[in-house]
Amino acid sequence: MNPLETTGQPGVIELRVHRHGSGTVDTRADHVGQEWPVALVFNGISHAVMMCTPRDLEAFAVGFAISEGIVARNADIQDIEVVFREDTNLPHAEVHLTVVQQAFAGLKDKRRALAGRTGCGVCGIESIDLLDLQPERVPDTGFIRRLAPDAIARAARELPQHQVLTQLTGGLHAAAWCDAQGAIVYAFEDVGRHNALDKLIGQLVLARADTQQGFVFLSSRASYELVRKAARVGIPMLATISAPSSLAIAIAQRAGLRLVSFCRESGYVDYETA
Amino acid sequence: MNPLETTGQPGVIELRVHRHGSGTVDTRADHVGQEWPVALVFNGISHAVMMCTPRDLEAFAVGFAISEGIVARNADIQDIEVVFREDTNLPHAEVHLTVVQQAFAGLKDKRRALAGRTGCGVCGIESIDLLDLQPERVPDTGFIRRLAPDAIARAARELPQHQVLTQLTGGLHAAAWCDAQGAIVYAFEDVGRHNALDKLIGQLVLARADTQQGFVFLSSRASYELVRKAARVGIPMLATISAPSSLAIAIAQRAGLRLVSFCRESGYVDYETA
Repeated sequence: MNPLETTGQPGVIELRVHRHGSGTVDTRADHVGQEWPVALVFNGISHAVMMCTPRDLEAFAVGFAISEGIVARNADIQDIEVVFREDTNLPHAEVHLTVVQQAFAGLKDKRRALAGRTGCGVCGIESIDLLDLQPERVPDTGFIRRLAPDAIARAARELPQHQVLTQLTGGLHAAAWCDAQGAIVYAFEDVGRHNALDKLIGQLVLARADTQQGFVFLSSRASYELVRKAARVGIPMLATISAPSSLAIAIAQRAGLRLVSFCRESGYVDYETA
Repeated sequence: MNPLETTGQPGVIELRVHRHGSGTVDTRADHVGQEWPVALVFNGISHAVMMCTPRDLEAFAVGFAISEGIVARNADIQDIEVVFREDTNLPHAEVHLTVVQQAFAGLKDKRRALAGRTGCGVCGIESIDLLDLQPERVPDTGFIRRLAPDAIARAARELPQHQVLTQLTGGLHAAAWCDAQGAIVYAFEDVGRHNALDKLIGQLVLARADTQQGFVFLSSRASYELVRKAARVGIPMLATISAPSSLAIAIAQRAGLRLVSFCRESGYVDYETA
């Protein structure tokens, strides 16, 4: 079976695998997570191609547009259309967003300012001067003080049952939205951890949820960009299963965002403020 | 302690952490992996900023230049200088590469062709048309047939002792070069899996190793870009500890590169050719 082939948009494909172990080979059907090129097109102009698991693409596009600062709010997005292109030798998707003139003008200015970039690396940034390491300051609404003592443990315990694609494939990233008691309200999965977080942020925005009254639980490590995306929408806390980087810690402190890592049912780690 | 502060370039920083567990808080010193902006500057022009663990940056820059197709071979790089900038409020590094005129002209053409990109996503690619999903074909030198039956198991068993930064921090990615018996020859670590692979490819090139006579063992998942980078330098096999994406499998098949995943001492999985 051609792994590019797919039916519907389940986020996974089925294919035949050979499991080798202690002198035996077991051939069987198994699942792998879909990684598709997804083009984000603003007012008819293709802006970026992300390698992404092709489901929840409307939420993904909204989350990307907001967490990357292309639009300031949901109302700036007038229309979204997701188009799947499976009839080519390269199945891919396009998300067409129509944004208000002000946001599109800002995007055009940004593109002009960036003219000539080849843009490997941090979102097309080619020189250190252009790197934005001053995240938005997260407002203190008292959410952290209202957090139940066992909220992180509960989210850690309950996340696996929301990772339906990971159960099938053994490996996608998940981003979940949790309330003050640690109950999981939304969960999204993707081959990319940034994409999973963008899908979640997009869902919060589409559902008009208060992004300052909950926390994000991520199955992955914490890096600079994940913290920056969360800070941009005012999320007060990021909890990750795996380790943070030095810059994730530093940016979280600058943003006033609480970062906790190595989150398990049995405990978690946080970092001393500089 | 300021997590941006560092002494030397160990790849990790020490800071105070609070471990919360079953009603207790244990405060102690611990380590986290450094994530620094690293600018890659070709013939005086900054080309990309990668978020990277600042060690082995010469190998990183060589590997990036080759795996991204900026230069064809090591001889195209005439000089490399790594500069650490710790005296700013944003510690970062710059790697200055002097490349032959032909490579620099190619890079300038590429930049001109890409004018106007803002470049979030796949290496600055903004539209599907520009996405290169035809990887280089890996030459068949018979390496796979010479691979010892227990080579993958041995590499899986021996990798942890090479993950010195992961032992300290609990979470960096590793990329290792293994011979036909599965013995680990080189290993590099980074907060980014692409960076770890670029460091390894750079080391192979700097050491004039035959990239067709060995395999890469990665602590991470397999995605499209990792396979494409490996194929570009003719590496015949990529073994990963975690799951592959659908496109990693498809691109590996197009390249004639063997991809094996879920590699453990007890076994591994491979995927049926389409």
